[in-house]
Amino acid sequence: MASMAAVLSKTSFLSQPLAKSLNSDFPIAAATASVSFPSKSRSRRGGIRAGLIAPDGGKLVELVVDEPRRREKKHEAAELPRVELTAIDLQWMHVLSEGWASPLGGFMRESEFLQTLHFNSLRLDDGSVVNMSVPIVLAIDDEQKARIGESKRVALVDSDGNPVAILSDIEIYKHPKEERIARTWGTTAPGLPYVEEAITNAGNWLIGGDLEVLEPVKYNDGLDRFRLSPAELRKELEKRNADAVFAFQLRNPVHNGHALLMTDTRRRLLEMGYKNPILLLHPLGGYTKADDVPLSWRMKQHEKVLEDGVLDPETTVVSIFPSPMHYAGPTEVQWHAKARINAGANFYIVGRDPAGMGHPVEKRDLYDADHGKKVLSMAPGLERLNILPFRVAAYDKTQGKMAFFDPSRPQDFLFISGTKMRSLAKNKENPPDGFMCPGGWQVLVDYYDSLTPAGNGRLPEVVPA
Amino acid sequence: MASMAAVLSKTSFLSQPLAKSLNSDFPIAAATASVSFPSKSRSRRGGIRAGLIAPDGGKLVELVVDEPRRREKKHEAAELPRVELTAIDLQWMHVLSEGWASPLGGFMRESEFLQTLHFNSLRLDDGSVVNMSVPIVLAIDDEQKARIGESKRVALVDSDGNPVAILSDIEIYKHPKEERIARTWGTTAPGLPYVEEAITNAGNWLIGGDLEVLEPVKYNDGLDRFRLSPAELRKELEKRNADAVFAFQLRNPVHNGHALLMTDTRRRLLEMGYKNPILLLHPLGGYTKADDVPLSWRMKQHEKVLEDGVLDPETTVVSIFPSPMHYAGPTEVQWHAKARINAGANFYIVGRDPAGMGHPVEKRDLYDADHGKKVLSMAPGLERLNILPFRVAAYDKTQGKMAFFDPSRPQDFLFISGTKMRSLAKNKENPPDGFMCPGGWQVLVDYYDSLTPAGNGRLPEVVPA
Repeated sequence: MASMAAVLSKTSFLSQPLAKSLNSDFPIAAATASVSFPSKSRSRRGGIRAGLIAPDGGKLVELVVDEPRRREKKHEAAELPRVELTAIDLQWMHVLSEGWASPLGGFMRESEFLQTLHFNSLRLDDGSVVNMSVPIVLAIDDEQKARIGESKRVALVDSDGNPVAILSDIEIYKHPKEERIARTWGTTAPGLPYVEEAITNAGNWLIGGDLEVLEPVKYNDGLDRFRLSPAELRKELEKRNADAVFAFQLRNPVHNGHALLMTDTRRRLLEMGYKNPILLLHPLGGYTKADDVPLSWRMKQHEKVLEDGVLDPETTVVSIFPSPMHYAGPTEVQWHAKARINAGANFYIVGRDPAGMGHPVEKRDLYDADHGKKVLSMAPGLERLNILPFRVAAYDKTQGKMAFFDPSRPQDFLFISGTKMRSLAKNKENPPDGFMCPGGWQVLVDYYDSLTPAGNGRLPEVVPA
Repeated sequence: MASMAAVLSKTSFLSQPLAKSLNSDFPIAAATASVSFPSKSRSRRGGIRAGLIAPDGGKLVELVVDEPRRREKKHEAAELPRVELTAIDLQWMHVLSEGWASPLGGFMRESEFLQTLHFNSLRLDDGSVVNMSVPIVLAIDDEQKARIGESKRVALVDSDGNPVAILSDIEIYKHPKEERIARTWGTTAPGLPYVEEAITNAGNWLIGGDLEVLEPVKYNDGLDRFRLSPAELRKELEKRNADAVFAFQLRNPVHNGHALLMTDTRRRLLEMGYKNPILLLHPLGGYTKADDVPLSWRMKQHEKVLEDGVLDPETTVVSIFPSPMHYAGPTEVQWHAKARINAGANFYIVGRDPAGMGHPVEKRDLYDADHGKKVLSMAPGLERLNILPFRVAAYDKTQGKMAFFDPSRPQDFLFISGTKMRSLAKNKENPPDGFMCPGGWQVLVDYYDSLTPAGNGRLPEVVPA
């Protein structure tokens, strides 16, 4: 353990030291001291064999009704008061059903909601603490509340009215929208994408309870094969004999700077003594804002990147993380990290301004670019996860490729932001050679080609993300 | 331990059960199971003998320079770049200097500030967690920052330019005002009293560091004798052989409903087997909003209440809590509770809507009236403190006195809010007999008499608190 910490300390992924009251001996962030060393934890718990990090709460929550009981449950559901789910509600139901939010067993009751808002964590019955930074709640309006009446159970139905789940032992409580927004985003400025999409017009009540999902969630969009559940990911990672799993969350196309970072992380893990570090390349698949590249195009782009050999398919698992995106910066990055623990990752790569975006009203980033990694490194319940803050990669004009930024010769580097990248692709301009593999770039160009011009004959504006 | 929990469970102070994922066996809230039983913890640590609850972090922080070194420190301070403190900054310096915020050793650095905003708690080097919900920070502007330059130490000076403290090993970081406000208050609506007083016009930087205060803080307002530090309170409580200490935070005059609650709490603690429960009647003495009754008048009123025998001076310690008031509801009540642990209290009485106020813009309370006690009961770092949510007292017309509200006969009860109470006193109307002792009431009437009418010849409006 000590030797691992020492090696980590020397490798120094951090672009700048964390504030002094953090474990200042460990620039690798928070909790290296309590890392679960995979080789030491073989065959711990039933269901999860071998050396992967244990899920939060010790046991992976799985809320899909077993095949033999589905018929009976569907009959039960048919008799219950109904709550219709939005597309985003369904994505959260999917997230809950597969245990990404383990040990959460359903949409939050008030005590969980309040702990999430105030503490970004939940205290379990045994006194232990798990991270939980983003409210996973279900809103209902006055009319739905009246319809539920005194019932202790409801059926959740999709937009066609088909029951998809049962929520039991329910609790209905007020939906304090302003407070939820302020405490989750650190602002109440108008224009936050998730807020406008899912909160502003949502009901004034929240309903929590124990969830039972009637069938595994499928989208039938040709991408379901990429939607591995935490249990399936764990199986795949074990099949590959992973002795370290490093997760990379993304919602943008992969360029060679990302690739550099991921291959460099693997190299460092090998140096540290791991024999078979596996990369979990884990694009977010739920709701994203309008100017992000849609999931289907991103998946095509990621496939090209693997085909072109930029990343090694042998040591990479590409899968879709079904969560919707909040764009809530330091609050949300904790959720992104915590969910990956449940999928078996014990290393988490965090960049500049994770889950950040421009301030919706003021001309500045909404979050300090360093707060994400700082907050993540101090977050309650994430002590077991190794946080890997990454150095900034940029286009090195002297080498004609993406490289880690060298502050001693800033004039040699070109920074190409996500916004810039999308602008270039939209205008069919080429990025410098070596920025992205040609096959991947072509996917982006094709995407923007495919867009029907907006009413004014122009493509939608690309805004900073 | 178990028997205590059982008794507490039967006494059922709670007006309504907490949500189910709380320790549902213990309606007395969070952490009865881990209560420090005073009789078991005698003579634990140097400096704090006998059975009082240990301060957060194990050792009470005291930051006032010892007499022999004051001269030298004053010379040092004279040579340093200067930061001028506002009245509220000085109150926070006072709070820090006496260890109310133990183990915090000075104005917060960024890592502490971020943990406070996101987690309402701080993780210590040994991995343990203490509660810390309200940022205790010092703002400086661009000019002050430039003046400090590369210095690692600054002198803090009062409004006359006299050095009062040294801040060492400083860290200067951005003051994200909007985010601070949103995460602390759960709203960014204009009109929050503390925000307008202390944040809106404050500098765009925060400066944290290790604090050394040159002299004990005095206000020379005739009330310093009531300003006992946590160390002095602990001494007093030990002198009285307290085997349970229950704290009552207030910022309003004491009426007979409060008195009923306090005497009833003592009775219950005696029933539980404590021999000598002592009440810490602990009015807040720092900044309060304009329409609250000022500290000097409240102290006169509290003295009358003790003189009139409504509370027993033998078992009551009246002292001033030097903190400024945030009016931040569920966030702030944690601070109010945590600070009292440091003063030796192991029971904390919490009422309806603690530290709450009306929404500054909308016609509703800013916080759900039950969130304060719920959040408090689940707060990280407060597991050792017994939370005593109280039942609502109201004026029982059938008995002609304040009594616990009986929901089976609501028509018999009269609710007299703080706003109503202040309106009556302002208009020299009398409340019903038995609402407040006559001596105490007279103090309030005298206070409103003493107010110079505002420019328009009318007294300032009383607004809901």
